[in-house]
Amino acid sequence: MQQQTGHTLKAFDEDMERLRALISEMGDLAQEAIREAMRCLAERDIEGALRVVTRDKEIDALEVETDRRVVQLIALRAPMAGDLRDAVAALKISGVVERIGDYAKNIAKRVPLLSSGSEVESVSLLPEMARIATEMVTDVLRAFVDRDAEAAVRVCERDAAVDDFYESIFRALLTHMMENPHNIGQSAHLLFVAKNLERVGDHATNIAEMVYYAATGDYMAEPASRDRRKKAV
Amino acid sequence: MQQQTGHTLKAFDEDMERLRALISEMGDLAQEAIREAMRCLAERDIEGALRVVTRDKEIDALEVETDRRVVQLIALRAPMAGDLRDAVAALKISGVVERIGDYAKNIAKRVPLLSSGSEVESVSLLPEMARIATEMVTDVLRAFVDRDAEAAVRVCERDAAVDDFYESIFRALLTHMMENPHNIGQSAHLLFVAKNLERVGDHATNIAEMVYYAATGDYMAEPASRDRRKKAV
Repeated sequence: MQQQTGHTLKAFDEDMERLRALISEMGDLAQEAIREAMRCLAERDIEGALRVVTRDKEIDALEVETDRRVVQLIALRAPMAGDLRDAVAALKISGVVERIGDYAKNIAKRVPLLSSGSEVESVSLLPEMARIATEMVTDVLRAFVDRDAEAAVRVCERDAAVDDFYESIFRALLTHMMENPHNIGQSAHLLFVAKNLERVGDHATNIAEMVYYAATGDYMAEPASRDRRKKAV
Repeated sequence: MQQQTGHTLKAFDEDMERLRALISEMGDLAQEAIREAMRCLAERDIEGALRVVTRDKEIDALEVETDRRVVQLIALRAPMAGDLRDAVAALKISGVVERIGDYAKNIAKRVPLLSSGSEVESVSLLPEMARIATEMVTDVLRAFVDRDAEAAVRVCERDAAVDDFYESIFRALLTHMMENPHNIGQSAHLLFVAKNLERVGDHATNIAEMVYYAATGDYMAEPASRDRRKKAV
């Protein structure tokens, strides 16, 4: 295998820096999409929701661009050990950010399916849940850019709060359905909205685990990780 | 950049062959997990469902092993062009197979939450939906092993059937909820089971797109791909 020169190393670092910036840009679009989808849901803004759906293609395009650059980076710079791990992490993380964008799109797609007689207000916890999940995405991408393993651990720890919100909302919606059968269609859609937000938290956790691994070469210790306490409601 | 010798090329092909076999093994475990989770759901086999949840760790471990080997393969063999694309596809596909395993686990986790008075029978379409989704996984992994782009296109075409099943089941469950509020909790869980199966179909489609790209270097034409017809119920 070729020996890496100082020049190659520097070039790798510069390419990797640009890659991190690109993924961070994807993350900004994904967070903005979640926030906008939730605003459209609350205000029954069908036009706005359609724009969220359309704009998801920008995130998809950035994933394709990230993949292309990672492959090019590996082919040109032949990184080893920690650098190769970093490049592969970038590839995996961009895939997860793309899925976070999909969840925003899925939430937006439900807006036209909700009737105008709003029941969203009855699920007052939903906006707060969305806020925490979106913040997890912001913070985990900052941790990725900064290669900050400790910040990644703190992101994982907040996933429990998102899960608790989800369980409360699940129960509130079921009660709501039982009280009045007319609420059932509406509430079923909101169940999926809550589930999508819960998955956003899970995916932020996944990214945090990848950031931790890329930064340290070790897997994150179990207690901070999601599997132990994960419930299925 | 180093020139690849005949020896290196052959070694790459052998490594890649083993990698395909490993991912195929992951796929077998994931399909088996879906089938077993659906059996446990139908028979209210809580013990069996717990085994499905526990065995998901085997799939997770295979993903870690695949990632390790891809990184090693790239570092040792420095593949270029189509070979590098193949190695990166293996990495991405193993990630998707791992998520298919997660859907099986999620279905299994709902088994203990369903009351013994079974409502599953009322959703007679669920086993058939599971069968098609599982077959898509089988066929797309065979297409991956065979590098068969045409077979990958055929897998995508079947995702419409899974989506149709999902919509029918969604409506059947809502009707069921409206008829009797006592069915609401049960049916809400089954809504998520149906959604998980629909996602399995989506993920098989994602893998098919990756197989197509790895085999041809082109992106699959839109009509076979899922985004055009995707609805949000």
